[in-house]
Amino acid sequence: MNFDLAEGLAVLARTPGTLHALLSGLPAAWTEATEGPETWSPFDVVGHLIHGEHTDWIARARLILDQGPQRRFTPFDRFAQFEESRGKSLAELLGTFARLRAENMTLLRGWHVTEAQLNLEGEHPAFGPVTLRELLSTWVAHDLGHIAQISRVMAKQYREAVGPWRAYLPVMDR
Amino acid sequence: MNFDLAEGLAVLARTPGTLHALLSGLPAAWTEATEGPETWSPFDVVGHLIHGEHTDWIARARLILDQGPQRRFTPFDRFAQFEESRGKSLAELLGTFARLRAENMTLLRGWHVTEAQLNLEGEHPAFGPVTLRELLSTWVAHDLGHIAQISRVMAKQYREAVGPWRAYLPVMDR
Repeated sequence: MNFDLAEGLAVLARTPGTLHALLSGLPAAWTEATEGPETWSPFDVVGHLIHGEHTDWIARARLILDQGPQRRFTPFDRFAQFEESRGKSLAELLGTFARLRAENMTLLRGWHVTEAQLNLEGEHPAFGPVTLRELLSTWVAHDLGHIAQISRVMAKQYREAVGPWRAYLPVMDR
Repeated sequence: MNFDLAEGLAVLARTPGTLHALLSGLPAAWTEATEGPETWSPFDVVGHLIHGEHTDWIARARLILDQGPQRRFTPFDRFAQFEESRGKSLAELLGTFARLRAENMTLLRGWHVTEAQLNLEGEHPAFGPVTLRELLSTWVAHDLGHIAQISRVMAKQYREAVGPWRAYLPVMDR
């Protein structure tokens, strides 16, 4: 499937509602569960998505669209949420994420990005040249990957509880 | 995490809203996408969940709670949705799933299942004796596994579009 701006936006716009429906009001036994040491809980993932709204996707898209002399992205901090989410409730994080995403959708829609602009390049600190098309595709896939992760982390909490059914539940051993 | 009826119900009750938020109104390019031949699209998965509401979880729970002479479960048809969903829209399937799940939640809550009843057994056609606790845990994990699957299937549609970022997106190669 080729990247299409309207199709990509359709997914990005739905993520806050999906996370709210999945997680809002759930017992902490679910939302603070992980897959083991050094892995993330649903709570951690929401904080990570917030950090992305603040510092990653829109900032990088703007850098590419500007085509200024400095097109190199600031490296993304994958662990910022451990500090930034401290002391906050999941309800607060879900609200913050929904607000930031809505603002970023408004920005992105307002840019009226053209097909030609989707081919403009920025410089990724590890990969080198990447296009706006690739950046926006990654934003969409990144959301979906984290929704899959949250569901998988939660499912695994019942790995023992399901007894013999584990053999029919591939999610338990991914 | 041990199975707890209130915690399990909290997840089961949220699944229709999660699927609605994630899928409702999305272009067919997303909702009819698969991981290749013989794999399921989001549309197929919703049909599969509907079939489970009709024939699997509640029927098996009732069979266990009744403790009648016949405690063997009817095998579940994993492919029923390909016939049953034919000609229906995703909006229709999401509505049907939400209605059936809500009815089943009302039934399950109304049974006021005790800890002792969670240990009662039925007979799975492949596994032999299984408890009500294992059945209900599996219902929860099955929902979450399919939410993870839907998100993964959608993410993979951008496997090429993300360019070099594929290396940072483990969901692409699961």
